[in-house]
Amino acid sequence: MITAFADRLSEVVRRRGNAVCLGLDPRWELLPRSFQERYDDGSLTGVASAFEAFCRRVLELVGDAIPVVKPQAAFFEWCGPDGMRALQNVLRVAQECGAITILDAKRGDIASTAVAYAEASFAGAVLAGQTHRVWNADALTINPYLGADAIEPFIQEARRSGRGLFVLVRTSNPGAGLFQDLRCDGEPVYVHVARAVAVCNQGHVAQCGFGDVGAVVGATHPEELATLRQSFPEVWFLVPGYGAQGAGIDAVRPAFRGDGLGAVVNSSRGLTFPFRPDDPDWEQRIRDAVAAMTAVLRV
Amino acid sequence: MITAFADRLSEVVRRRGNAVCLGLDPRWELLPRSFQERYDDGSLTGVASAFEAFCRRVLELVGDAIPVVKPQAAFFEWCGPDGMRALQNVLRVAQECGAITILDAKRGDIASTAVAYAEASFAGAVLAGQTHRVWNADALTINPYLGADAIEPFIQEARRSGRGLFVLVRTSNPGAGLFQDLRCDGEPVYVHVARAVAVCNQGHVAQCGFGDVGAVVGATHPEELATLRQSFPEVWFLVPGYGAQGAGIDAVRPAFRGDGLGAVVNSSRGLTFPFRPDDPDWEQRIRDAVAAMTAVLRV
Repeated sequence: MITAFADRLSEVVRRRGNAVCLGLDPRWELLPRSFQERYDDGSLTGVASAFEAFCRRVLELVGDAIPVVKPQAAFFEWCGPDGMRALQNVLRVAQECGAITILDAKRGDIASTAVAYAEASFAGAVLAGQTHRVWNADALTINPYLGADAIEPFIQEARRSGRGLFVLVRTSNPGAGLFQDLRCDGEPVYVHVARAVAVCNQGHVAQCGFGDVGAVVGATHPEELATLRQSFPEVWFLVPGYGAQGAGIDAVRPAFRGDGLGAVVNSSRGLTFPFRPDDPDWEQRIRDAVAAMTAVLRV
Repeated sequence: MITAFADRLSEVVRRRGNAVCLGLDPRWELLPRSFQERYDDGSLTGVASAFEAFCRRVLELVGDAIPVVKPQAAFFEWCGPDGMRALQNVLRVAQECGAITILDAKRGDIASTAVAYAEASFAGAVLAGQTHRVWNADALTINPYLGADAIEPFIQEARRSGRGLFVLVRTSNPGAGLFQDLRCDGEPVYVHVARAVAVCNQGHVAQCGFGDVGAVVGATHPEELATLRQSFPEVWFLVPGYGAQGAGIDAVRPAFRGDGLGAVVNSSRGLTFPFRPDDPDWEQRIRDAVAAMTAVLRV
């Protein structure tokens, strides 16, 4: 019996007592000086090793305090194939910490191509009776622009193994509105996307009251966040934009249901780089930043 | 002096005399039996080696006949980090054949994340005076849903090194209309996206009359293709949907300008897998499929 993704997410949020998503967006120039010195061999292999070592250390420091870990694929891809191996290892270590992992890769494609992305993201492909896992993440972010057949293959693959999805609905960036805010039949495009997400959950609501297809909704638009929460009570939200991108606790409160469930709030730079590279107390800075954010986002 | 992407694309299309884009979407179960037998060691490393060897052989057979090669990132990612190394090698071999390479990864993200994807895709990052290349592709497909700040960083990075972009505008899949066809201010969403693409090219039209920001427009909607061609004469089109997806030569003709430039028409399965795995003449089938398509798409 496979436990639904939404129930697994609810359980770990309740057990750890907060709704923090730890974003892992490693950047070479932000790493502690000691990492830059140890791994600077002039190759992307060195950078990938530094990214993996830094993320492992962050997870050793705070991986048992937060319910969700979200590595950003772009920064690992930036290191090439060695970066992708580092990403595999980071995802595994995060799971060993008991966290739910969201691979933030914003994939979007159709038919067999979508299946390939989904198999790589989740339980892997079966060839000649053998299972081949790649990312083995608990959830994946996806982009809805290609339409129904760019969402459905991901859902099928996710449900086969108790995984989840977060569909981009209302993103946190300043230029998000260019297409997301276009009004069609009296409602902006992003509401149409949110409704399609909610439809995916019909008949698939888990014990916790949420479905396995969630939505990315930025904290930088708090009124919209509140409206979406009211309109779509069965959709988990992944909320970027907190901290470094400008939104505070008041902006994210409307994302939650009365019982404290329903959203995980991401912070990347704010939690993993709250220091300058030459700060000898960088580990304590990370612990403090995570403690502060988990305190305000108590569930 | 960097030659603009659009001029490089025009030049190779004219020199090779056709507008065919060879899609490389390797699938294990479709490979010639001899490849399946040689590389079946029960690991993804074996699959990745098979994908690379097959793509290399395809490029040896037909790489000097076609102007554009488009590997699909999903199938390489499906093999994990070894697949990403195979993708690097395939991109390099395609360039050595004199083809323009389009990495079909449909990336879409914002700010420093978009820059990371763009640096990986194009000329690489500079760290301590050293350039680190990852994909080194001539062009990349991107997804517009996140808005202006999900397009702009890719454009900046592309222009620095004479590379190009193809923004998803009107995709070829049956479910494409769910959001792309929503009508806003009397026009469907995809026309709004096409207009934003055209605006990106203002002030950046190369000698050939096209800009470096192109559009993905599916061949499965020929009337829309014709309208978009008329409305946006300075936008290169990458046209999927030909062959296996159902569209024929009449459907793609409206994508071209009067002088024969302005579109490259992709076929993946139709060109690279026009055989059953146990067909001993599979190499000839690929040569024949490419010869047939280049003949009908003569420029």
